[in-house]
Amino acid sequence: MEIKRPTLVVNKTTCMQNIELMAQKAQRHNMRFRPHFKTHQSVEIGRWFRDFGVEHITVSSIQMAKYFASDGWKDITIAFPFNTHEIDDLNELTANTKINIVVDNPKTIDLIHKRIQNPVDVYIKVSTGYNRVGITSSSYAQIEQLFDAIAHESKLNFAGFISHAGHAYETTSRNEVQNIHFDAVLKLNRLKNHFIQRYPRLELSIGDTPSCSIAEYFKGIDEIRPGNFIFNDLVQYNLGVCKIDDIAVRMHCPVISKQQDRSEVVIYGGAVHFSKDYLQNIDGKALYGRIIFNINGEKKLLNPKNYLVRLSQEHGIIRLDNNLFDMVDIGDIVEVIPVHSCLTAACMRSYTTRKGERIEMM
Amino acid sequence: MEIKRPTLVVNKTTCMQNIELMAQKAQRHNMRFRPHFKTHQSVEIGRWFRDFGVEHITVSSIQMAKYFASDGWKDITIAFPFNTHEIDDLNELTANTKINIVVDNPKTIDLIHKRIQNPVDVYIKVSTGYNRVGITSSSYAQIEQLFDAIAHESKLNFAGFISHAGHAYETTSRNEVQNIHFDAVLKLNRLKNHFIQRYPRLELSIGDTPSCSIAEYFKGIDEIRPGNFIFNDLVQYNLGVCKIDDIAVRMHCPVISKQQDRSEVVIYGGAVHFSKDYLQNIDGKALYGRIIFNINGEKKLLNPKNYLVRLSQEHGIIRLDNNLFDMVDIGDIVEVIPVHSCLTAACMRSYTTRKGERIEMM
Repeated sequence: MEIKRPTLVVNKTTCMQNIELMAQKAQRHNMRFRPHFKTHQSVEIGRWFRDFGVEHITVSSIQMAKYFASDGWKDITIAFPFNTHEIDDLNELTANTKINIVVDNPKTIDLIHKRIQNPVDVYIKVSTGYNRVGITSSSYAQIEQLFDAIAHESKLNFAGFISHAGHAYETTSRNEVQNIHFDAVLKLNRLKNHFIQRYPRLELSIGDTPSCSIAEYFKGIDEIRPGNFIFNDLVQYNLGVCKIDDIAVRMHCPVISKQQDRSEVVIYGGAVHFSKDYLQNIDGKALYGRIIFNINGEKKLLNPKNYLVRLSQEHGIIRLDNNLFDMVDIGDIVEVIPVHSCLTAACMRSYTTRKGERIEMM
Repeated sequence: MEIKRPTLVVNKTTCMQNIELMAQKAQRHNMRFRPHFKTHQSVEIGRWFRDFGVEHITVSSIQMAKYFASDGWKDITIAFPFNTHEIDDLNELTANTKINIVVDNPKTIDLIHKRIQNPVDVYIKVSTGYNRVGITSSSYAQIEQLFDAIAHESKLNFAGFISHAGHAYETTSRNEVQNIHFDAVLKLNRLKNHFIQRYPRLELSIGDTPSCSIAEYFKGIDEIRPGNFIFNDLVQYNLGVCKIDDIAVRMHCPVISKQQDRSEVVIYGGAVHFSKDYLQNIDGKALYGRIIFNINGEKKLLNPKNYLVRLSQEHGIIRLDNNLFDMVDIGDIVEVIPVHSCLTAACMRSYTTRKGERIEMM
């Protein structure tokens, strides 16, 4: 494969292994597997999931729902508090596709009052500690208010509680992730037990990659919605969620400048390619990517003292030990493991397979 | 104008004022005005510059050069160390367009040896202190090596020295920006004086928005290449380079959740819309945007204690004082002034004018 400019290369074999593991886990625990497609945002990659029997998907916007519905997906959860300005788009979509929406406030339902044309399943978003959106899972009074608003709309059907333990990303170890997950499962089961008699079919849906990858305890959980796991990235690796070989995407970048004084190599590949997400490196500084390059004909992952230290719009600066600096030259292609694969993919808007085939995104 | 989802609204009047000021400054100092189009990346916005006599432009990639060449731009500098893998693209472009490239290493020229088909002007990239790419402006021996490499290729013509004082962005005041600019002008003039007898037509080209906006001292400078000034942003505002009213882009975002406990409002608008660039706020924390909203029918800029505090992929979290929290509701449209307009535009890939017309990007 010829690399001319920053190219996001996806390893399909690794993706298929990652999907298979998660599909098997869902099956083992008798849960619906509803992967989040915001990570890859590609109809072609979406089709890879069909080999594992996936029929239900998650997206983060109504536009993404439209995009995947156009490729034949028939049951889509928009895991984002419903944006009332898009009620017409929702009605258009629900004519042919089962769409499940998420709400955390009765005002949302007020604003679309009498404007919902087709039946829609509604999940109540609850927070088990992430504290981004959603009703705190112990706030029964607020939940009751939402039940009232939902009951008031004949086209809306309460389907269950949905949560995302995003605080699993704020940890530094598998143990902490396990604790957060266990706490979330407990809190959600408390909710389920409290309301199950009134709503016998209510479901619990959870969905972060760290918890879904690591945990084996899913009591009472009906559905998982992880997304990142298909690619993984340095964030997952640093949490101990995946190995380097489980990361399915790498950016291939040409070297365009060398700065001997500073032992820095400059690549064509910057913030518009990687996004500006970073991790704190072992030296306390921001790390924008780990580096792989050819040493004596063999691809080697450099240790984290040799890393992508800075990004501007199109430039990436890699600091290297002197002996490594001497091994790389202008025109060489360096591979970079991205910090956050979802945002990197969103920046790039296309993939290239290892055979050189281009995969489009929405 | 109806806002349904995150929308990057551009104020053309403000853009035209910003362009006019910079064009007048270039004229006043007898410099060529070669604006950097990586900021807006739009043929339509590019055409706005033609009203001010602009005929020469700057871009950051060969693809961007192709895009603007297709709209009739005939003299384009690619202000990025030439990527040797794109030599065929360069040859294709130079058949009809004057393209000027940038190099900082003889190896770059070695790699395209005998492969350049049409005449190309070459600028040597020098660093006056930013230390990203380029030869340190005092390293005459390295510069001489590049002269030799250039002389060896009959199709290459040495045109001058190009620099970008990106360290102007690492300052906190207009005075510091002035000092960096003055230092850069001195260093570049030293180079010009040293080599002018050998290359009587050699030019000096500089190009960061802070220096070009603030400075009035341009002795010996032949060309300026600022880009960001057309939009400006919070980075420029914080440096004292522009006023809030000089910022020409705002993101309009629907409110999709309210979190009373934390006095936080959640908007539809996240990292995939704004990018993850941030500034350090007065409270020491990361600031991802300043907020404007309607208070009693009047648009008000909120003070920096009420700001965009966090971004995830599609969510933006705004923390507000209690009284402001009560004034905003789900479904409202909030306006956000972005931290870095270039990256925000690169994420959005289209603009909407205040009249509701859509402007496409490359």
